[in-house]
Amino acid sequence: MFTAKIKVTLRKTILDPQGKTVEHSLKSLGYDNISGTRIGKYVEMKIDAKSKEEANKIAEESCKRLLSNPVMEDYEFEII
Amino acid sequence: MFTAKIKVTLRKTILDPQGKTVEHSLKSLGYDNISGTRIGKYVEMKIDAKSKEEANKIAEESCKRLLSNPVMEDYEFEII
Repeated sequence: MFTAKIKVTLRKTILDPQGKTVEHSLKSLGYDNISGTRIGKYVEMKIDAKSKEEANKIAEESCKRLLSNPVMEDYEFEII
Repeated sequence: MFTAKIKVTLRKTILDPQGKTVEHSLKSLGYDNISGTRIGKYVEMKIDAKSKEEANKIAEESCKRLLSNPVMEDYEFEII
């Protein structure tokens, strides 16, 4: 049994209004030295695979086919 | 300049309907060997701090005060 830890983030060229809002709120709490805030999704799932390679393939396909929007988002994951 | 990579996840005892839905969708795509899917938030931000300790403190406070709901969510982060 493996665990996949997946991060899905907006591509750098895409505006992130949610991130801007969070950053603005942090500034109003007094944290002036924060910039470039970006918000994404974090997905954790257990994969019952025979090998790490198989788990890797399943995670990769899940990201491509369901978890990310290939036009606007990037993903990265680790299998442990 | 440091980068904080923050994961905010629902506590294990809290039901995660969004995770269940994603898992159900993955199953209908043919991935039967996936379980325990949990969805959280991923936040990345740049912190202009003098030391790693200071960046650490700012990230910790941001999580506590704004990014997570302490009743329902856990957070973890790394500073690089």
